[in-house]
Amino acid sequence: MAREKIVVAGGTTKSWKLLLGLRIFAFMATLAAAIVMSLNKETKTLVVATIGTVPIKATLTAKFQHTPAFVFFVIANVMVSFHNLLMIVVQIFSRKLEYKGLRLLSIAILDMLNATLVSAAANAAVFVAELGKNGNKHAKWNKVCDRFTTYCDHGAGAIIAAFAGVILMLLVSAVSISRLLINSKNFSTTATTTSVV
Amino acid sequence: MAREKIVVAGGTTKSWKLLLGLRIFAFMATLAAAIVMSLNKETKTLVVATIGTVPIKATLTAKFQHTPAFVFFVIANVMVSFHNLLMIVVQIFSRKLEYKGLRLLSIAILDMLNATLVSAAANAAVFVAELGKNGNKHAKWNKVCDRFTTYCDHGAGAIIAAFAGVILMLLVSAVSISRLLINSKNFSTTATTTSVV
Repeated sequence: MAREKIVVAGGTTKSWKLLLGLRIFAFMATLAAAIVMSLNKETKTLVVATIGTVPIKATLTAKFQHTPAFVFFVIANVMVSFHNLLMIVVQIFSRKLEYKGLRLLSIAILDMLNATLVSAAANAAVFVAELGKNGNKHAKWNKVCDRFTTYCDHGAGAIIAAFAGVILMLLVSAVSISRLLINSKNFSTTATTTSVV
Repeated sequence: MAREKIVVAGGTTKSWKLLLGLRIFAFMATLAAAIVMSLNKETKTLVVATIGTVPIKATLTAKFQHTPAFVFFVIANVMVSFHNLLMIVVQIFSRKLEYKGLRLLSIAILDMLNATLVSAAANAAVFVAELGKNGNKHAKWNKVCDRFTTYCDHGAGAIIAAFAGVILMLLVSAVSISRLLINSKNFSTTATTTSVV
């Protein structure tokens, strides 16, 4: 009995909808994080010294490019947003296409890599931001946020969005991995039913 | 035809051996990272001021507990080492056991979560270490490594080991995810052959 070509269409399964929804939210979270952080800039005129009774002022600017962790943060979140956008397009426009195992496998591995990337970026940024907020007395690093409050608030907003992106990408990755199993279940039930018929 | 109970033993497949090897290396890398960082400590007597011509000395200690990112680094690497140790034991002592899809799925998802965790820890530590090495002139943070060279060298060693752990965990996770597909292939070929017989 020639083995029937077993087609498991992406179809409108529950996991397909769940994955699409999670991806859209993950896309929005990581894109928001990248935009807010990349626009994060504050300029202030501060008293930097006093000579006699005369205060010496200087105009200082805080921007994300000044901190390597924040540059990595923006790049990583842009990459993960792009990955999700691509996957959303692939998922919507190839719904009828045959969902061979290999395709699901590469999507699952790509999702895992992107979850790892956005988690790396969010954690690097949050620990450097914590130094900006609290300083480090051992290293004699003063806090920054007491002088650049808006800059730190926007930075915190971007980092919160990125952590939402991390949680969503972990869920996307878990669903994506589970679809390999669901695919194998469909695969074998169709194989058994075709053989019975 | 009652559906035969399809048993796909873990067996001595190539992916089984590959996964075990990768896990052992990942275990060693993350454990080494955790041990080197947790033992990282340097005490120095430094001139902190001069009054007239008299240098004022102070004994300063640099240790990993002084930096939240390094504390997170040690905890995360210990967790990932423990995860790998557990998986190695499960993989070795349950070789004969029936490898149902759900078990492979939970292992794949756990591996993905641990890859994300160790990547978060390694990246948080590397960006904070970069600040220690180069300082940040915008935030007026002086470098630390010019005075605590041994401390920084050991920290760098631990971070390199952790990044080796990240790469290995990404490979472990990818192989772990692929086994779901390999399992579904075995699953369906056995299903088709049992139905043909």
